[in-house]
Amino acid sequence: MTVWLNGRLMAAAEARIDPADRGFTLGDGLFETLRVAGGRVCHGDRHLARLSAGARVLDLPVPYGPDALAAAMAALIAARGLEDGVLRLTLSRGTGARGVPPPPDPHPTVLITAAPLPPPGGPMRAVIATVTRRNEHSPLSRLKTLNYLDSVLARQEAARRGADEALLLNTAGRLAESSVANLFVVLEGRTVTPPVADGALPGIRRALLLERGHAEERSLTPDDLARAGEAFLANSLGLRPLVAVDGRPVGNGAPGPVWAALSAAE
Amino acid sequence: MTVWLNGRLMAAAEARIDPADRGFTLGDGLFETLRVAGGRVCHGDRHLARLSAGARVLDLPVPYGPDALAAAMAALIAARGLEDGVLRLTLSRGTGARGVPPPPDPHPTVLITAAPLPPPGGPMRAVIATVTRRNEHSPLSRLKTLNYLDSVLARQEAARRGADEALLLNTAGRLAESSVANLFVVLEGRTVTPPVADGALPGIRRALLLERGHAEERSLTPDDLARAGEAFLANSLGLRPLVAVDGRPVGNGAPGPVWAALSAAE
Repeated sequence: MTVWLNGRLMAAAEARIDPADRGFTLGDGLFETLRVAGGRVCHGDRHLARLSAGARVLDLPVPYGPDALAAAMAALIAARGLEDGVLRLTLSRGTGARGVPPPPDPHPTVLITAAPLPPPGGPMRAVIATVTRRNEHSPLSRLKTLNYLDSVLARQEAARRGADEALLLNTAGRLAESSVANLFVVLEGRTVTPPVADGALPGIRRALLLERGHAEERSLTPDDLARAGEAFLANSLGLRPLVAVDGRPVGNGAPGPVWAALSAAE
Repeated sequence: MTVWLNGRLMAAAEARIDPADRGFTLGDGLFETLRVAGGRVCHGDRHLARLSAGARVLDLPVPYGPDALAAAMAALIAARGLEDGVLRLTLSRGTGARGVPPPPDPHPTVLITAAPLPPPGGPMRAVIATVTRRNEHSPLSRLKTLNYLDSVLARQEAARRGADEALLLNTAGRLAESSVANLFVVLEGRTVTPPVADGALPGIRRALLLERGHAEERSLTPDDLARAGEAFLANSLGLRPLVAVDGRPVGNGAPGPVWAALSAAE
């Protein structure tokens, strides 16, 4: 199992994260999850642009340019012989002394790992998480950071309640997204998704659907799910129908035509 | 530099965090910061009880009992010859496959590191962070988790604005705490601190001050700082006077008598 760490390919067993890495001690960093299809990264430019934008918000220098990172991902894909799969690119602020303030001269860590594509997902049943809310008042809700514990808590609640996934409300009670994907709801013939201001991560797949006119932004409440024709979840790994929420069917409780059409167009 | 990792003392340079550790990939874990004085951990029982309570919320098994962790800290203190200093005990969920759901059979990571005591701190000037808010709707606001990026952002804002520290508001606009300490404000002769429900971490020092009758819980707004007699910040490393907020003096702009009395009583 080969990984790419700080400039070179190596066996995963040899890759070492320093115990003082602020990614480990404070969640001080960002990541991207990228789909690999036919041996190539899908939408690599968009992912690297989002990483770069997030790093600016955190004032975190990215130690490799987009071309070098694209080459690193290609090298890992080649070393792993990956045709279809998933890459994860993690950027942390690197080691630091004890305490919250970032070091003045950081040496960030960049790690790229590969994994097989998860098995094709069927229809999903979700709960609306009651244990936590997504904080739309924090810029972190708009960045893919290493601070993922609210999603972990929501997903644990989903498992306890016998569901596959959890939807998170924001602090105002509006729907934000799921634990790992953006939410799309078909209402009166329009496909809508919560705006970033409501705590939705600006997902790459979400951006593509918006740009291509397949969806539009609108604030959503749990009541909207009750009157939706259908709903689906979308992230870089694909689109999955959402057929039930809190035990009640969405639409007729089966994958809907908008999901089918958009999935086929992928 | 010796550290304690997963059951044994070793050189820091030999200590390895696996790149797949969920502490690094998702911030999936907790930590404690403990004061060492006279070669002994201060309030170790309380810190370990808080760690255990937080681990229950995260459904994260703690692989060593309190006695074993206390012995581990004592061994590290002895190996480092530490008289006065700071320990950090970090518990993460250990390695996991790609994705948010925790592994069914986790092998958590426990790391204990030591650092010298920071130089005695003088009076502090803070800003009220505008870049982010603390999420009192999440149980994570009541746990000392590895998700520390909101505090990092707030502290970066403080540095940009020429201050030493940042106070965080919760999503309702109430004062929650500072980036690394609980807030205490003296109002009409009473020392008050925000309740945990407002997003304050239940700090060990805070608990001691409340139990001993030195302070009481009350919701606070920024306006309260303008009419405060004095204010101070408290965490496991001590009490520090807060003499200015957003460029305006708190009280007469000098360390106050309540801070002086409580510091002397420590």
